[in-house]
Amino acid sequence: MRLTRYFLPTMKDTPSEAQIVSHRLMLRAGMVRQASAGIYSWLPMGYKVLRKIEQVVREEQDRMGCQEVLMPTIQSADLWRKSGRYDAYGPEMLRIRDRHDRDMLYGPTNEEQITEIFQAEVHSYRALPKLMYHIQWKFRDEVRPRFGVMRGREFLMKDAYSFDLDYEKAAESYRKFFVCYLRTFARLGLKAIPMEADTGPIGGNLSHEFIILADTGESAVFCHRDFVEADASGLKVDYEDPQAVKKVVDYYTSLYARTDEKHDASLFESEVPEDKRVERRGIEVGHIFYFGTKYSEPLGASIATPEGEESFVHMGSYGIGVSRLVGAIIEASHDENGIIWPESIAPYKVGLINLRAGDEACTKACDEIYAKLNEAGVEVLYDDRDERPGAKFADMDLIGLPWQLVVGPRGLEKGVVELKSRATGEKEEVSLESALSRLGA
Amino acid sequence: MRLTRYFLPTMKDTPSEAQIVSHRLMLRAGMVRQASAGIYSWLPMGYKVLRKIEQVVREEQDRMGCQEVLMPTIQSADLWRKSGRYDAYGPEMLRIRDRHDRDMLYGPTNEEQITEIFQAEVHSYRALPKLMYHIQWKFRDEVRPRFGVMRGREFLMKDAYSFDLDYEKAAESYRKFFVCYLRTFARLGLKAIPMEADTGPIGGNLSHEFIILADTGESAVFCHRDFVEADASGLKVDYEDPQAVKKVVDYYTSLYARTDEKHDASLFESEVPEDKRVERRGIEVGHIFYFGTKYSEPLGASIATPEGEESFVHMGSYGIGVSRLVGAIIEASHDENGIIWPESIAPYKVGLINLRAGDEACTKACDEIYAKLNEAGVEVLYDDRDERPGAKFADMDLIGLPWQLVVGPRGLEKGVVELKSRATGEKEEVSLESALSRLGA
Repeated sequence: MRLTRYFLPTMKDTPSEAQIVSHRLMLRAGMVRQASAGIYSWLPMGYKVLRKIEQVVREEQDRMGCQEVLMPTIQSADLWRKSGRYDAYGPEMLRIRDRHDRDMLYGPTNEEQITEIFQAEVHSYRALPKLMYHIQWKFRDEVRPRFGVMRGREFLMKDAYSFDLDYEKAAESYRKFFVCYLRTFARLGLKAIPMEADTGPIGGNLSHEFIILADTGESAVFCHRDFVEADASGLKVDYEDPQAVKKVVDYYTSLYARTDEKHDASLFESEVPEDKRVERRGIEVGHIFYFGTKYSEPLGASIATPEGEESFVHMGSYGIGVSRLVGAIIEASHDENGIIWPESIAPYKVGLINLRAGDEACTKACDEIYAKLNEAGVEVLYDDRDERPGAKFADMDLIGLPWQLVVGPRGLEKGVVELKSRATGEKEEVSLESALSRLGA
Repeated sequence: MRLTRYFLPTMKDTPSEAQIVSHRLMLRAGMVRQASAGIYSWLPMGYKVLRKIEQVVREEQDRMGCQEVLMPTIQSADLWRKSGRYDAYGPEMLRIRDRHDRDMLYGPTNEEQITEIFQAEVHSYRALPKLMYHIQWKFRDEVRPRFGVMRGREFLMKDAYSFDLDYEKAAESYRKFFVCYLRTFARLGLKAIPMEADTGPIGGNLSHEFIILADTGESAVFCHRDFVEADASGLKVDYEDPQAVKKVVDYYTSLYARTDEKHDASLFESEVPEDKRVERRGIEVGHIFYFGTKYSEPLGASIATPEGEESFVHMGSYGIGVSRLVGAIIEASHDENGIIWPESIAPYKVGLINLRAGDEACTKACDEIYAKLNEAGVEVLYDDRDERPGAKFADMDLIGLPWQLVVGPRGLEKGVVELKSRATGEKEEVSLESALSRLGA
């Protein structure tokens, strides 16, 4: 993409309405614009990142055998009356009356809807387990939306649901999602630590939040250092083998890891040696939860058991805040100059800077590099604007592409270009051929 | 995908609520379920098709240089008050009041929103043209929703917007979309004919509906036979060359083609020789429209011209009904046994039928074929259920995958399998190797 054609409205000044760094950087980098309080329009570069994150989430759901569906945003209030949540939900639910005066709502989540779909079609234990997910926009009418896409009102979420015969089978599904989430966040370049979370009136230990560490995080977190150092990238597990899956979960639940909500200081001190105690701040990016027959009972989702009896299915739900992740990743990965994208979700891999757009040799070289990278399928954003080098460097650092390839007249005379890693700041003068081959072209 | 694991609730009986064939088939093939009046949940196979159509639409928008954004579903009423459409829109607009008593609405379209984004960021003719699209769910509160996804309340639409300096430049953008739509529908296996449409108070001739022929279509259409026979598949045009683009548009606007709304019987008879007159029914799947400064004026979207003056941008909008296309394609492509998917958007390319799931040799052969097709990246749905052959054939015809590969014990003894084309019904006994190679494995 050529910058002269791209719709990338970057800003030099820090917008006053943004309180946290990810919000500031997303506005400055031209990724989003606020449409109304807590509701954002995604501009081309922001949407590109959002879609890449969505795709990683999707691939990992598919890999574990979860099937993608799409439920609508607008739901019938009657469905929520069956579960008792229509009255219980409070003012965060966006309630709507349609032209025929029927009560509707903009879904904040989908337990009722997926349970209704399941109960109409599945009647035997033979069809179980069933794991289904969708990636859909939700609405929660926050009283004071803030922090940009981290706590907006309209937000994109992946929510998955499991249906199983009994608690034991439900726990197996739960553990698959646990492992799937470790893989997903690792692929997104994040270190996400599973932490015990509240299970509510159901009890048990099948509720975990996945938390990434960031100084600006909303919660205080306390955990064993081994979890901070553990690396789930490259984790390979056969999802068809419940024992292999359980082994991973057992390790990641063997040490202390809790947010302030569940923190127990004396337990922390007795379980974790002093030099292994980590106290930091964190951001929730995922939540998995077993809730038994809470929805299957009121919605009548029962199945025939192997013994020929009728039994309510055991369910769990599994969420990842997809649009929130864009902000969370920036919170975890930036410096004073801007965003530092992990390569897996960077909007473009390479930023090509033409230092002197008016110079014929420079422009010719850049055009050729641009064509070669495109041909090789390497995503490249080409700054072909007639701007000062300083402004180009600043914009490129701001938007945070992993690699910058700088082409200037002096370098060209020597036959070299500059290759800069955004993450490390390291710059190297290399031949054009070597730069291209290192970038995969 | 193995059918024993898939969530594909097919139905033998015709659902009574469905009046048209695409609605009946989508329900029977387990593609969608109604959530509430005119609002659908997309089950795995239906959603797979929807996403494939969406991806073709996206690729063709990208190819013409249109940039993808995503605007939210919930919009502020104030924005629509500026254009005057908040009061004008009528009861089809889903109006919402949030917890702070602010008037909001579920967007039925996005002219106001995109114009607001544009006017805040673009101030010079140098940045023009700007072409932007998004693929987002819309809501129109139809008084009597019907025909399944063909006329639902919550529906997925691609809407694009062009911003240009003046009428001449806007017409160039308009013509790019015209060609882009020809390519898009051809890739979807559709014959879509551009027909003159109403331009409203603006006048001129820059408004076309793209209509596919189907006996169940909502409108009567009248056109020159050459357009019915014209084939836009493989159409290659350099979008950077306005003359090449114009040439295509000139051809497709040179002959008579109108829906009943614009039909002029005497003109039809005088312009079209009798043997070339085609009268059929059609379904609208796209609409492109130039509307000048209708929104840029009230929303203050002006730019500096080359002469240093301020001028309101000239705009157009360009819609494709993405979820509607799923139904429209079925209307255009089915028989008495079920759906016949064009290969480009079929949920799976191959349906693999194990005629005797209890037979060891059959199952072994099928498992191997399944593995080979998957390895080669050929999408395959494997009917591994323990069901009668008749039920398997009926389901496979119903869901309409392009190829059926039938493996039975008698064939295996002779070393052959049966390959059936869903579109032609032709069956061939071929060796396993030859079947695999013809399917691309």
